[in-house]
This record gives sequence, C-alpha cells and structure tokens, in this order.
Amino acid sequence: MENTPVRKPQVIIVGAGFGGLEAAKKLGNEPVRVTVLDRTNHHLFQPLLYQIATAALSPADIAAPVRGILSKFSNIEVLLAEVKSINVAAKTLSIGDQEIAYDYLILATGSRHSYFGHDEWEKLAPGLKSLEDAVEIRRRLLLAFEYAEKVTDPAAKAAAMTFVIIGGGPTGVEMAGAIAEIARYTLAKDFRHIDPSNARVVLVEGDQRVLSGFPEDLSASAMKQLKDLGVEVRTGIHAKNLTEAGLDVGDEFIPCRVKIWAAGNAASFVGKTMGVPVDKVGRVIVNEDLTIPGHPEVQVIGDLANFTHQTGKPLPGVSPVAMQQGRHAAHNILAMIDGRKPQRFRYWDKGSMATIGRNKAVADLNFLHLSGLPAWIVWLFIHVIFLVGFRNRVAVLMQWAWAYFTFNKGARLITRNFQAETRPLT
Amino acid sequence: MENTPVRKPQVIIVGAGFGGLEAAKKLGNEPVRVTVLDRTNHHLFQPLLYQIATAALSPADIAAPVRGILSKFSNIEVLLAEVKSINVAAKTLSIGDQEIAYDYLILATGSRHSYFGHDEWEKLAPGLKSLEDAVEIRRRLLLAFEYAEKVTDPAAKAAAMTFVIIGGGPTGVEMAGAIAEIARYTLAKDFRHIDPSNARVVLVEGDQRVLSGFPEDLSASAMKQLKDLGVEVRTGIHAKNLTEAGLDVGDEFIPCRVKIWAAGNAASFVGKTMGVPVDKVGRVIVNEDLTIPGHPEVQVIGDLANFTHQTGKPLPGVSPVAMQQGRHAAHNILAMIDGRKPQRFRYWDKGSMATIGRNKAVADLNFLHLSGLPAWIVWLFIHVIFLVGFRNRVAVLMQWAWAYFTFNKGARLITRNFQAETRPLT
Repeated sequence: MENTPVRKPQVIIVGAGFGGLEAAKKLGNEPVRVTVLDRTNHHLFQPLLYQIATAALSPADIAAPVRGILSKFSNIEVLLAEVKSINVAAKTLSIGDQEIAYDYLILATGSRHSYFGHDEWEKLAPGLKSLEDAVEIRRRLLLAFEYAEKVTDPAAKAAAMTFVIIGGGPTGVEMAGAIAEIARYTLAKDFRHIDPSNARVVLVEGDQRVLSGFPEDLSASAMKQLKDLGVEVRTGIHAKNLTEAGLDVGDEFIPCRVKIWAAGNAASFVGKTMGVPVDKVGRVIVNEDLTIPGHPEVQVIGDLANFTHQTGKPLPGVSPVAMQQGRHAAHNILAMIDGRKPQRFRYWDKGSMATIGRNKAVADLNFLHLSGLPAWIVWLFIHVIFLVGFRNRVAVLMQWAWAYFTFNKGARLITRNFQAETRPLT
Repeated sequence: MENTPVRKPQVIIVGAGFGGLEAAKKLGNEPVRVTVLDRTNHHLFQPLLYQIATAALSPADIAAPVRGILSKFSNIEVLLAEVKSINVAAKTLSIGDQEIAYDYLILATGSRHSYFGHDEWEKLAPGLKSLEDAVEIRRRLLLAFEYAEKVTDPAAKAAAMTFVIIGGGPTGVEMAGAIAEIARYTLAKDFRHIDPSNARVVLVEGDQRVLSGFPEDLSASAMKQLKDLGVEVRTGIHAKNLTEAGLDVGDEFIPCRVKIWAAGNAASFVGKTMGVPVDKVGRVIVNEDLTIPGHPEVQVIGDLANFTHQTGKPLPGVSPVAMQQGRHAAHNILAMIDGRKPQRFRYWDKGSMATIGRNKAVADLNFLHLSGLPAWIVWLFIHVIFLVGFRNRVAVLMQWAWAYFTFNKGARLITRNFQAETRPLT
C-alpha cells in the first residue's frame, strides 16, 4: 500500500466495447479512479448484430447499459459523451463543451465502415456497426417485401426481392445466410402476391473467395453452404457504382432495392487527433506493449490499434483481440502505478468462426477445422456464453430455440414512417 | 352454400388493433375475401406500452407482425397502407396513390392523443400510443438522468430529475408508478453524482381524483399506493402552459425536463371523412348494431366509435370493448351475406384494472374491488394471457420474473444521437 499515492491516479477509458469494458472490469476496485466514456449508453454484443438486422433478436437482447454492468465498482464512473480530440501533451481530452484530464488513457473507440472514398454510398447501402444500423437494415428488408407485395410492375417486383450484400467477410456471409433463411422459411406464408422464397440474395466479394481470413477449405465449405441456402455467391467482382436502382459491377448491373455494405472498415477518427503515426485505415500504430511512441500513459486497443509485433501483420479486428488487449492495458496501468514497466502484449489466438444459417457454419479452431452442424453448435455455445448479462443470455437462448423449432422470427417490426420506402424508386 | 355468391364479397378492415384483429380472425376461412389495412406492420399490445417507455420490455415483446398473426387464413391479405379518406357512396377508400373498393367495411383506426388545441405541446410532452412514442419517452427518461449526472448547476440538476405526467387516467398512473420504481430501484446504484431515488415524480390531474373512471374507493387506494412509491399526486390542477423548462399550472411553475402527456384522446381523422355525425373528439356516432346511418355495410368499432345505446354514455376506449365489437362486426357481416339483418351490440363489462407498480394495482371486477397485491396478481395473469403470440407471452413472463427478483430492467437503451438532449435547456 505504500506505493499508492494519496490522490488516486485518474484512468480514462474511451469506448465501452469489448476492449474498453474488459479494461474497466480489471480496474474495478483497484486503487485508481476510472471514468468510462462512451457515446452510447450501452455495450453492444456486435457479433450478433446481424440477428437484429434480420429480425431474430431485439436490440435489448444483445445490448446492456454500461452503467448497469459497472455499477458494482464504486471507483468507476460512466459518462455519456463523445470524445472530439485528445491532447497527449497536456494529458487531456475534449468532449466538446468540456476538457477532461487523465493520468492514464486507454483508447478503444473501434471502427466504422469505410466506403473507400464513396461516402455517398452510405445512404444507399448501410453498414452494420450500431443498433441504429441494424434496425435500419431490418426496416429496409421488411419494407422491400411489403413493396414487392404491392407493386404490379414485374421488374420493380424483382428488384424489390433482390438483396445484394457487398463484402464476403464474416458479416457479409452471416447477413446473406440470414436473409436467405428469413425469405425461405420465416416469411414464406405471409404474402399473397409474392413468394418470398423466390427472393434473390447476392453476395459480392472482390477477392477470389469468401471469408478470406479463414483457411481455404473453410472458405470453400462456406461457399457451398451459402449455395445450399440459395445464395448467389459472386467472387472476384467489385462494386463500380451504387445507385438507388441497383449495383453496377462493371460488366453487369444488378437491379436491387436493398443493398447492404459489409466491405470495409475504417478506424475511428479519434486516433488521428493525437499526432502519432496511423496506418492507411486510421489505426494507431502501437508499441509492443500497446502504448504509443513517447507516451507510455496512453494505450490503444482493439479495432483502433495496429499491432504487428506478433505476426508481422496487424491483428484482426475481432473481439478476442480487443478483450485480451483490454485486460493487458489494465495490467500495464497497475504495473506503472507500482513503478514497473508496461509489458509487451501477446495475443492468444483460439480460432475464429462464422455462422451461415441453421446448422450451417465454419469454425477454425487452429488444431481443427469444422463445418456445418458441428461448427454451428460450437458457434452457438461460444456466443451464448460470452453474451453480457445473465438475462440476455437466457432471453437469447429462448428466442433461438423458438426460432429453431418454429422457423419463426419474432422481431419483425418496422418502426418509423414507411411511406418513403414503399414508393417506386425514382 | 346456395347463398354464397360466385364472387365472394370483399371485406376491408382498416386498423389491426384489438378490434380489427378480432374481426379478421372471425372472418378467417369464411366465404369472404378480407383485406386488413394498417399503417404499421405490427399489432401492438397497447396496455403494456408504458413498460417499453420505462425500459422493462422491448418493442418485440408486445408487438407481433400482422402478417404472421393472420398468415394461416388464406382468404385474408394484409396491406401496409394508410387510409386517407373513405367514400361511402362509392364504397371505396383512398390510400393515397390508389382507390380500393369494398362490399363491407370495418373501420377500426382508433385514437391518438389530443392536446386540446395546443398542438405545439406535442413535442414538449409526448404521449404514449405507438412503439415510436414509447421508445422516445424511454430515451428522454434515461437521458434526463444522464444529464443530471453531468450538470453542475443545482437548479438544472433538480429540473432534470423532475418528471411530470399530465393526466391521471390508467396510462398516467402506470407511467408515474413505473418511473418512480425505475428511479428508486433499477437506477439506484448506477450514478456517482446524483441519487436517482431522489427523483421527483409529479402526477397532475384536472379532476379531483385519479382514475376517475373507477369507483371512488379504488381511486383513493390508487392515490395511496402512488404516494407510497413517493409519487406527488396533484389533483384539481390543469396544465396552463408547457415550455421546455417546465409546466405552468397557474399559481405554480414546476421546473422539469421531462413531461409526459396522458391527458386526452382524439379519434382518428378517418371517421370524419365519411360525412356522418361525429362527437366532439371525432368519434363516429354508431347505430346500436355498430353500423353508420344509411350504410349497413359500414361498421365502426373500438376507440373510433361512439356507442351510447347501452348505458347512455359512450363505452370507454378499452381493449375489451374493441375486441367484443370486432367479433360482433364480423358476425354482422356474415349475417348480412346470408340475407339476415345486423344484430344490436351489447358490451359485456368484465371490469377494469390499472397497475401502479410492484405488488401495487387496483382492479374493479364489478362484484369485487381489489387493491394492492391481489389486484396486481389478477392484472399480471390477465395481461400475460391476452398477450398475442406464445413467444411474446413466455418472453414477457421471463423478463417480468427477472425484473421482479432483481429489481433490474433490461431494456435501458438509448438509441439515436443523444447530443441535443444532453445540452442545457435554452
């Protein structure tokens, strides 16, 4: 206890995603004052966001209030605020109307989608990062079927029943599979003038294979499983242009009302405000102990960090990396307070997985590659176990069980005014 | 079968609330073609809407897609559309870009809140009729606590922690009780600079008692139960003016950031487009068989109908009235198709109830008046039994059980941008 100063050091954690939350929990009840800043009031279990977008789950099933999660730690306070910039020399950050001082900073503001310079595409093809994104995509999906039911022109009907997902990474694969399932099973009997099971789901990927971060055998298996669900997988094809009417891939125009963007990420802008080197997608290039050059009191973790010291390539933007880095950053701070040096970070890669649909998934457990039902069961257990909060876990399990046995999805709600979206495209 | 014409009669039901949905179900698989029009894609269990507004339940728990509910009836189709006007002479209705013809019409478009000529108050004090309303109120409630935590000025802090509900009917009583509970129990440990259990909840009612539709002993009991929860009940007081800064009740100004409107209803505008007599809140004055003068093929039910033939007063705007009228209207149509006359409607009043909080409620079962725990248990069972859809029923029960034993409410999500609402009032 003799090392504990009278005024406890102030730690600020920006971002209550997987990384920030792990760091906060590790610092709970330690001899530091902690402030967690986030621009939303909830922690989001992002890996299941596509299930909101496809009406299987409700927002509250995969999101929990940050205050509630951390309320048991009396040394932690939570502030709903958006960080505008960081002044590493002064050790302060700006939240617009206020400057806040820190002794130690953990920056975990994550990433948004990137449209590769075509920001005008965002409105036409929303991405999937926040609850608002997911509810917006759900709304577009459901309204497209409503429009198809109502419209008489066959070309307009066909375009309304064509769903294009741009990007064949895990999010794109999950969305494509889930849309195919909702059309073929959930909505099958709901309409009188269209047959939703005829919906055309197209997955467009620039690379030669989907899930290019996975081993080749699993990519091939995912491709086959998608095709079994009726998804058209188009690899080696790039989006040349996007319009309300559809997607231009160069030698072909695919007419479609609903387009979903799953193609690229860019790091949060906050990293760039520090004046330290960032990579071309805006990630902060961190030292091997997660600190930034010249400022051991500042650590950057998760999707915002470019950490290359282990494999020579940046670690992927997945939750296990963020969580391990979050815990590590917290340990580093406690070490520095004790007068010790921050330690270098090592990522323990337990594998990765992606789900495609009912009984369909791929899992790369490093020592073992799984496909189909076994992969799906592994996926199911891991995702339920890691869901934050007991209530959510039970609620999600129940809804999955219900959906599994009845092919029914309960959250098929369209909220807000529908008028604009059920008009013909201009 | 000899009475069934070759071309089956076309029935149009406008509105998929309690009344419209009951009518549709009764006409399922009967020798008629049915089209159900609604401007949302879901049926809403309105009596539990205040639980969305107070973060106990999620929208999907109390709403179910109309298509899904009616998909088993092949003679029923569902159309997402908003009726603009009705031409009773031509037997058509307009949905904006299209005219639709009917042989029989059931009009069940319900009511919205009324601001008694002060439409500018709607933005300041939202009412509670739709899912959007409920999510907006939830957002304002949660953001008020966030603002109170952040602001240093004591007057601003106090105003942010004062919640005024205008109107002491069932909705106002339920909201006041639920807000008091969330402040005293759910949020109690979530903040560091405020004590949410000090929140001031004020229920303002123009009449001399709350729940004026209930017997006097139950009004008195509700008043006492509200006071036990710490709610300030102010009766015999009218809203003179509303501003961002608070509520003016004549001799007093109550500074408050969040105001909720539960004071008045006005019937949907659709009734007025028919050119038949309406009452001063826009309800259509119906014959004793629910038809309108001169047009036995048109029936009006639920909150949109003014039915005085039983007690001399209009029947109340509650779901049992709407449901019984919906079934009756369907029977009338089948009778008319068979060449018989529509029958007069009789409401079977099984009583009414309102809930105030955990173990707190009042129930008027006509032969018996209940208060407190017994009333609350009756309320609980009735509401779970009548929830539409098995999945919702189980999900709601589980969430209630969880909330009951842990005092925790899971749906404390703020969605959309929070910036505007966490700024000082101007």
